[in-house]
Amino acid sequence: PPSEEPSKSSQKEQEHPKPVPVEISRDGKDVHVKLTAQQQRIQIAKGVEYPAWTFNGTVPGPVLKVREGDRLHLQLKNMDSKMNHSVDIHAVNAAPDKHFADVQPGKTDEFEYEVEDPGVYMYHCATTPMMEHVANGMYGMIIVEPKEGYPTDQAVDRTFTLTQSEWYKGRDMEEDRPKYVAFNGVAHKYDAARPLKAKAGERIRIYFVNAGPNEMSSLHVVGTTLDRVYVDGDPRNSLNGVQTVTVSPGGGTVVEFEVDEPGEYTIISHQLNQFSKGAKAILKVTR
Amino acid sequence: PPSEEPSKSSQKEQEHPKPVPVEISRDGKDVHVKLTAQQQRIQIAKGVEYPAWTFNGTVPGPVLKVREGDRLHLQLKNMDSKMNHSVDIHAVNAAPDKHFADVQPGKTDEFEYEVEDPGVYMYHCATTPMMEHVANGMYGMIIVEPKEGYPTDQAVDRTFTLTQSEWYKGRDMEEDRPKYVAFNGVAHKYDAARPLKAKAGERIRIYFVNAGPNEMSSLHVVGTTLDRVYVDGDPRNSLNGVQTVTVSPGGGTVVEFEVDEPGEYTIISHQLNQFSKGAKAILKVTR
Amino acid sequence: PPSEEPSKSSQKEQEHPKPVPVEISRDGKDVHVKLTAQQQRIQIAKGVEYPAWTFNGTVPGPVLKVREGDRLHLQLKNMDSKMNHSVDIHAVNAAPDKHFADVQPGKTDEFEYEVEDPGVYMYHCATTPMMEHVANGMYGMIIVEPKEGYPTDQAVDRTFTLTQSEWYKGRDMEEDRPKYVAFNGVAHKYDAARPLKAKAGERIRIYFVNAGPNEMSSLHVVGTTLDRVYVDGDPRNSLNGVQTVTVSPGGGTVVEFEVDEPGEYTIISHQLNQFSKGAKAILKVTR
Ligand SMILES: [Cu+2]
Ligand SMILES: [Cu+2]
Ligand SMILES: [Cu+2]
Ligand SMILES: [Cu+2]
Ligand SMILES: [Cu+2]
Ligand SMILES: [Cu+2]
Ligand code: NA
Ligand code: NA
Ligand code: NA
Ligand code: NA
Ligand code: NA
Ligand code: NA
Ligand SMILES: [Zn+2]
Ligand SMILES: [Zn+2]
Ligand SMILES: [Zn+2]
Ligand SMILES: [Zn+2]
Ligand SMILES: [Zn+2]
Ligand SMILES: [Zn+2]
Ligand SMILES: [Zn+2]
Ligand SMILES: [Zn+2]
Ligand SMILES: [Zn+2]
Repeated sequence: PPSEEPSKSSQKEQEHPKPVPVEISRDGKDVHVKLTAQQQRIQIAKGVEYPAWTFNGTVPGPVLKVREGDRLHLQLKNMDSKMNHSVDIHAVNAAPDKHFADVQPGKTDEFEYEVEDPGVYMYHCATTPMMEHVANGMYGMIIVEPKEGYPTDQAVDRTFTLTQSEWYKGRDMEEDRPKYVAFNGVAHKYDAARPLKAKAGERIRIYFVNAGPNEMSSLHVVGTTLDRVYVDGDPRNSLNGVQTVTVSPGGGTVVEFEVDEPGEYTIISHQLNQFSKGAKAILKVTR
Repeated sequence: PPSEEPSKSSQKEQEHPKPVPVEISRDGKDVHVKLTAQQQRIQIAKGVEYPAWTFNGTVPGPVLKVREGDRLHLQLKNMDSKMNHSVDIHAVNAAPDKHFADVQPGKTDEFEYEVEDPGVYMYHCATTPMMEHVANGMYGMIIVEPKEGYPTDQAVDRTFTLTQSEWYKGRDMEEDRPKYVAFNGVAHKYDAARPLKAKAGERIRIYFVNAGPNEMSSLHVVGTTLDRVYVDGDPRNSLNGVQTVTVSPGGGTVVEFEVDEPGEYTIISHQLNQFSKGAKAILKVTR
Repeated sequence: PPSEEPSKSSQKEQEHPKPVPVEISRDGKDVHVKLTAQQQRIQIAKGVEYPAWTFNGTVPGPVLKVREGDRLHLQLKNMDSKMNHSVDIHAVNAAPDKHFADVQPGKTDEFEYEVEDPGVYMYHCATTPMMEHVANGMYGMIIVEPKEGYPTDQAVDRTFTLTQSEWYKGRDMEEDRPKYVAFNGVAHKYDAARPLKAKAGERIRIYFVNAGPNEMSSLHVVGTTLDRVYVDGDPRNSLNGVQTVTVSPGGGTVVEFEVDEPGEYTIISHQLNQFSKGAKAILKVTR
C-alpha cells in the first residue's frame, strides 16, 4: 500500500517525523494505548544531540499507568522505514513470540494482555539486536498500581518517575563504558536551573526503573534515608530505612522518603562515575 | 607411586583424559561424592573450543543435590599433572584451610562436612590464583533441599538448573570484559534448535548460580514475572512478583514462574551486553 | 587570621601535617565529633604510597558510633590549604546544601542533625567533583545502633568493621578499572601475617560499607554461610542463610556468622577481580 512505500521526497520526513503523542484511553478494565516507534533527533546532554530510536519521539517513552487486573490493548505503529520494532512489557505474562512480536516498517499491530502483577516495570523494544534497540532509546516505564494500593499510599504527598539509562558514543556497547548516564533521557537534566520540586515536610515517592542496557544502578537520595523501599515495586516486598538501593538493568523499585526542611536534595546513582556522567536530579524543596 | 609419575608417552593422555563421570551415593544421611579435577578441551560457543580446567570434564561441574542435615563426604581426585586444585563449597561451615585444602597433582583426598543451610550454592576451586581457576571453568552448583521443603514445592511442575559464568579471551581477567557469558558453560547454548522445554500452564522453578568470576547477573525471564524469588535459595527469604533479580558472582537464587501459554520464553541476564555475549536460554513451551 | 594564611615555610607542613586523631565526646543524647579534612601520604598496598585526601589522616576515616535518636554535632576542620571539603552523612535527614555544606580551606564549621535511622552508613566528602574526593580517600563508616538493638545482639561475641573501596592509578576514574580494591584502605591488609582474629565457636558480626566510588561489592566469607543479614543494617530488614551479599557503592550491610572450628576463614568480595586486587581479609580462628 502507498502509505508503506513513501515517495523519495517524503522519505526524509518519514525518518524524522514529529513526535506523535501517546494516546491512552480507558473503558472499564480495558486500557487502550497507542505507541509509535519512530526515529527522532533528541537532546541527551547539554549541547549534545543523538539520532535516537524512540517510542513516540521521546526517550524514555511515555510513562504508562494501569491498575492490577486491567487488560492492556497496546497498539504499536512502526513509523520507521527500515527496521522492525516491538514492545516487551515486563509487567505481563504472555508468550513473547506472539505478544511481543516484531512489527515491520510502516505496519501497525495490536497486542493484548492482562497486567496481573503490581509494580514498576520496564518496557522496551526487544527486536534483535536488542542491546542496540535499548541503547538507542527504546524503553519506558509502566506502573501497575496494586489493587489494594500500597500500605503507605495515604502518607505520600508527591510522586516522581525516573528512568535511568546509558548513552554510548560508538557502537561497541558490549565493551565500552557509557558516555552519559541519564535520568529521564538527558544527562544532568534536572540541574539547579530546572530542578524537580517539592515542599518541606512532604513525603515523596519515586517510581524508578533502570533501563540499562548494561550497568547496575545504586539509587540514593542525598540528605535522606529511604524510609520505605518496595523491591521491584511490589507492596509485599518491603524494606525499611535504606540508604542506597541496588537496581539491576531491567529492574525497578519504588522508594519513599521525607524531605523535612527546605534545601537542595539530589537523587543520584551512587556509582559515582554514573553520577559524574549525568545520573543525578536535583530536588528543590521549598517552604 | 607410578600413578603419580606418568611416563612421557602417557603424558598427553593424562592431560586430557576422558571426562570421568561424577559418582554420587547415599547411605542414610551420608552422601559420598567423587569429583575429579581434570583439564578438558570443551566447547564454549558455536565453533569455539577452550582448554578448560574442569570438575569431571564438564563446565559447569556436576550439579550436586543433597538435603539439609546431610553429611557430605567429598572426594577430589586431582588428575591434573601440574597444578593443585581444591573444592570450596559455599553450602558448608568448615575451616577452609582444612576442608577446602589443595590437592596435589595426581593425589586424591576426601573432605567431610555437614550441609546445614538450605539453598542453592556455588562450589568452585579455590586454589591460588582463584580468579583463574574459576575463569577457566572450575565451578558448579550444589542444591541443599530444605528439611521442610519450600512452601511452594507442591505447585512446581518442572525445574531447571542454570549456572551463569564468563569466558575470557586473554589472561587479563582483572581488566578485560568477558568475551562470552554463558548459561551452563556454553554461550547461546539453549537456542531455538536446542531449547529448554516445558508445557503450557506449568509452574517452573529455576535453581540459579552466578559463578562469575567478575560480573553481576540480572536474571530475567522474557514473557513473565517471577511469582516467587527465594533470595540465595533460602525458603525464609521470600520475594514476590519480581521482574529481574540481581545475583552477585558467588551467589545464587531460586525463582519460580508460570508459563501460561505456548510460545518461546527466553531466560536472560538483563545486562544486555551479557545477553549479547550468550547469557540466554530459550524455554520452548508447548501444549 | 594568621592561622589561615600560613607563611611559605610552613606551607609544606600544612599540606601534610600529622594525622589529627578524631575527638568524640558524649553529653546525654548529644554527641560531639571533631573531624579534620587533611591531605596525607598513606600506604594503600605493600610498598605503595598514595597522596590521599583524608578525614583525620586515615583512610577510611574514623568509625563513628552513635545511637538511634542521638543528636550529632559534627565539626569539620578543613586543614587543606587549597580545596573545599565537606561531610555527607547517609545516616541523617537534613538539607544537604546547609548541613553538608563545603568548608573552605583553613576554616572550621559545625553541623548538627539527628540520627533517626538505625543502620550502618557511609559518610564521605561530597564536594565537587565528588567522585574524586571519594576516590582519593574521603569516606568512612557511621554505625547507628538501633534503639532496641538487633534481635541477635545477645548471641554476638565479636564485631569487626570493614569498608571496601577502590584505588585508581590515574585520574580517569570514569572509565578505568581500579588498580586496587581494599578493605579498610589497604589492599591485602589483613593477610596471614596480620589477620583479623577470633575464637572457635564465636558468632561474628561485620559492619560493612562499600565506599566505591564505582563498583558493586559481593561480600562473602569463605568457610561459612551468613546466618543473618540485615540489609543496610536495619534490624527490620532480615535475611537468613545467605552465601554472598550484594552491596552497592554508597550502601552497607550487617552480617553475622559462626566460625565453628579453628582455621583461616577469608572475608572477600566474590567479584574475583576485586579479590585479586586486594579485597580480602583473613580471619584467623583459634581455640
Ligand atoms: Cu526497536
Ligand atoms: Cu526486558
Ligand atoms: Cu583449580
Ligand atoms: Cu566462593
Ligand atoms: Cu573533600
Ligand atoms: Cu553518599
Ligand atoms: Na537504615
Ligand atoms: Na528523610
Ligand atoms: Na511485580
Ligand atoms: Na507467568
Ligand atoms: Na542458604
Ligand atoms: Na558458620
Ligand atoms: Zn484491543
Ligand atoms: Zn496470550
Ligand atoms: Zn523519617
Ligand atoms: Zn567419608
Ligand atoms: Zn571441620
Ligand atoms: Zn502468576
Ligand atoms: Zn553543637
Ligand atoms: Zn536542618
Ligand atoms: Zn550456623
